[in-house]
Amino acid sequence: MLDLLFVNACIITMSDECPVIKSGYLGVSDGKIACIGEGSCTEKATVVKNCAGNILMPGLINTHAHTAMSIMRGYADDYTLDEWLFKKVFPAEGRLDERAVAAGFRLGAAEMLRFGTTSISDMYFYQPSIAAIAEKMGIKVSLSNALVALDKGTYNPALDRSISETVELATNWHGRANGRIRADAAIHGEYTSFTEARSCMAELAQKYGLTMHVHLSETKKEHEECRTRNGKTPARVLYDEGIFDSRTIAAHCVWAEEEDHDIMREKGVSCAHNPISNMKLASGFANIKRMVDKGVNVALGTDGCCSNNSHDLFEEIKAAALIAKCINSDPTVINAYDALKLATVNGARAQGREMECGRLCAGLDADAIMLDCDKPHIQPVYDPVSAAVYAAKGNDVCLTMVQGKILYENGAFLSVDIEYAMKEAKTYGMERVIG
Amino acid sequence: MLDLLFVNACIITMSDECPVIKSGYLGVSDGKIACIGEGSCTEKATVVKNCAGNILMPGLINTHAHTAMSIMRGYADDYTLDEWLFKKVFPAEGRLDERAVAAGFRLGAAEMLRFGTTSISDMYFYQPSIAAIAEKMGIKVSLSNALVALDKGTYNPALDRSISETVELATNWHGRANGRIRADAAIHGEYTSFTEARSCMAELAQKYGLTMHVHLSETKKEHEECRTRNGKTPARVLYDEGIFDSRTIAAHCVWAEEEDHDIMREKGVSCAHNPISNMKLASGFANIKRMVDKGVNVALGTDGCCSNNSHDLFEEIKAAALIAKCINSDPTVINAYDALKLATVNGARAQGREMECGRLCAGLDADAIMLDCDKPHIQPVYDPVSAAVYAAKGNDVCLTMVQGKILYENGAFLSVDIEYAMKEAKTYGMERVIG
Repeated sequence: MLDLLFVNACIITMSDECPVIKSGYLGVSDGKIACIGEGSCTEKATVVKNCAGNILMPGLINTHAHTAMSIMRGYADDYTLDEWLFKKVFPAEGRLDERAVAAGFRLGAAEMLRFGTTSISDMYFYQPSIAAIAEKMGIKVSLSNALVALDKGTYNPALDRSISETVELATNWHGRANGRIRADAAIHGEYTSFTEARSCMAELAQKYGLTMHVHLSETKKEHEECRTRNGKTPARVLYDEGIFDSRTIAAHCVWAEEEDHDIMREKGVSCAHNPISNMKLASGFANIKRMVDKGVNVALGTDGCCSNNSHDLFEEIKAAALIAKCINSDPTVINAYDALKLATVNGARAQGREMECGRLCAGLDADAIMLDCDKPHIQPVYDPVSAAVYAAKGNDVCLTMVQGKILYENGAFLSVDIEYAMKEAKTYGMERVIG
Repeated sequence: MLDLLFVNACIITMSDECPVIKSGYLGVSDGKIACIGEGSCTEKATVVKNCAGNILMPGLINTHAHTAMSIMRGYADDYTLDEWLFKKVFPAEGRLDERAVAAGFRLGAAEMLRFGTTSISDMYFYQPSIAAIAEKMGIKVSLSNALVALDKGTYNPALDRSISETVELATNWHGRANGRIRADAAIHGEYTSFTEARSCMAELAQKYGLTMHVHLSETKKEHEECRTRNGKTPARVLYDEGIFDSRTIAAHCVWAEEEDHDIMREKGVSCAHNPISNMKLASGFANIKRMVDKGVNVALGTDGCCSNNSHDLFEEIKAAALIAKCINSDPTVINAYDALKLATVNGARAQGREMECGRLCAGLDADAIMLDCDKPHIQPVYDPVSAAVYAAKGNDVCLTMVQGKILYENGAFLSVDIEYAMKEAKTYGMERVIG
């Protein structure tokens, strides 16, 4: 007896051997995909959902987010990067306490569930308390508190919150909630830290077997100043220090050069591409076609929604495909299927969850979403992959499921009190941001 | 007694003297905005709508669309431009009859109403029958059938459907339906016609006082081949022929040069910027900042949804702002308010409807939309203009009204049988496209 059975579904599996099942079924048992195939299922189920006309597909994976920044959505638009960071974002972040960060995470994670995201690589602070919220919300999270260490003279790892939170996450949370919660190690960036501090974080990654999460060559200034300071690129600096000896997600990589792509392929470093944020902050267009051609694993992220201002991966998927076509003057580049891979298969690989999710295959976690296609802006559907990539939006997700548990369905948030989440963000969160 | 009164509304008026009313009212009488202001309204109304927490704003204006192409949504993605046009789009269009085009228009216009578009500049064929559909649907349309005349030897204006449809539209439809329906003249492009044929269409524009609608410098190839053929740019060719002596919408302008911008400003030619289509077909990024700085009126379009694949102007608004920032390496360029102007005030001006819509002011047509902001992906709202531009999507529109008549509200299409529209597009329309 299956727990849950989806029938009459058009399924985008994202398995290369059979990417699309035009009409089939997907059965869930104990949080895993028990069976998937064409036509009808012979097994019975406790709950049966008829998906006629809709698309079932893997949950989307957000490999670079600062989820709690959703309380700053629209707080600081259209500023220069320096003003944005030093006059708006940093002062506001200085006013955030644990409760405000919790409010931001709850709001942002609810938005992500609503828009079909099932797993987040989240870099922010107060992460052990966020882990507890994520556990209740049922979404998968890889949590990190990124090392920022500017002053070599006064740096003391024993007093560094990023170190202590990483240890706490690694010892108390890593692998908890049926594997949904993970600890990541994180270094904010080459330009915001020095070698010895970075090696403290790298040691934690090695010791606990954590994925490393870093910002890399996001802006031209950052990239070129590193070259001036070190005579090499940020990627080369981190490579030489052994940072990439742990599985790594490198966010942005807008200004990464060909030799950096070589490093990334050699070390299995994934790029977390954030096309919307990169445009909004005018950082530049990352050329993911070149990375993909080189064999680099490219995934997607929304970044903080203060520079976005959404957590809608459907928006990032379409933007990634379109930008790649335009900057390479070739409309065949990053086709719809390639684009969807970024947010599914490649995202799972970046997070180290490739044996767990990112595709719909028997044995993997039942992390799936459903798109309501009975809408004028999605019809007609010649090709479900095209419909998902070029026509659908996060708002068209009508069901989000993680490990077989439905967390969002047809307007209802089933694992979070959405009224409370919005009110808390609008009142306490906003007050702390404005100060 | 007002017909309709919106109360407790956060209103984005798009009037420069008072762009935002934090909490106010808007009254409708005989299809016009009778009153608008802060606080409460003293007049009574037949119907009162409480907008608490929501945003009321002008309906969006799509200045370049081939609406009926919505039946080809997803039919031809990721092809080279030549394959796309000659192997997919043209053969499919050759199979379209009046019924299929009607199905496509009905679907596309329903999508636009759902996403907050109240006025369309639509270039396609079978336009007199489309006028009748648009009249029933209540949406504003400026309809054209664009001249394509490749062979000088055999060209006969008396046999040219674009000429006869334009005359029919101008004599039977222009100004009908309380001004909602207009006829436009249209020339597909410099590269798909010759001088004498263009002058036939230009004469119609002059004779009937029509707006002219053309494609201009969409691709590098088109722009450079024109320079080689004529020793001047497409804009200069059309200028020298007097085409721009009528009010003109020039779509795309990706490769337009500084001297072309000068021409556009001098002649009041509006650019219909189509950022999504330009990226998907890899045509390039139009630099609208340069045009705006020059004093050119820049508006927005979705183009045909076979190269988009949406008719969501919220997507275009955000893309326009983001691309402008990124290609000019300056995040302050085209701020949220500037971006919203493209789809409202500037759109109305491009269509020659600036004394009629594009802003919410007493005396103008009551063309307005409401955004449902009670959603995690829009909260918190520090600035309603930012929320509308960077966070909201077409799907967040909960009410669309044209000339005081509500055409879409909370999932219900009030002027079109949406089940029929979708079925007709999925069956008859798809069959004709596939052939």
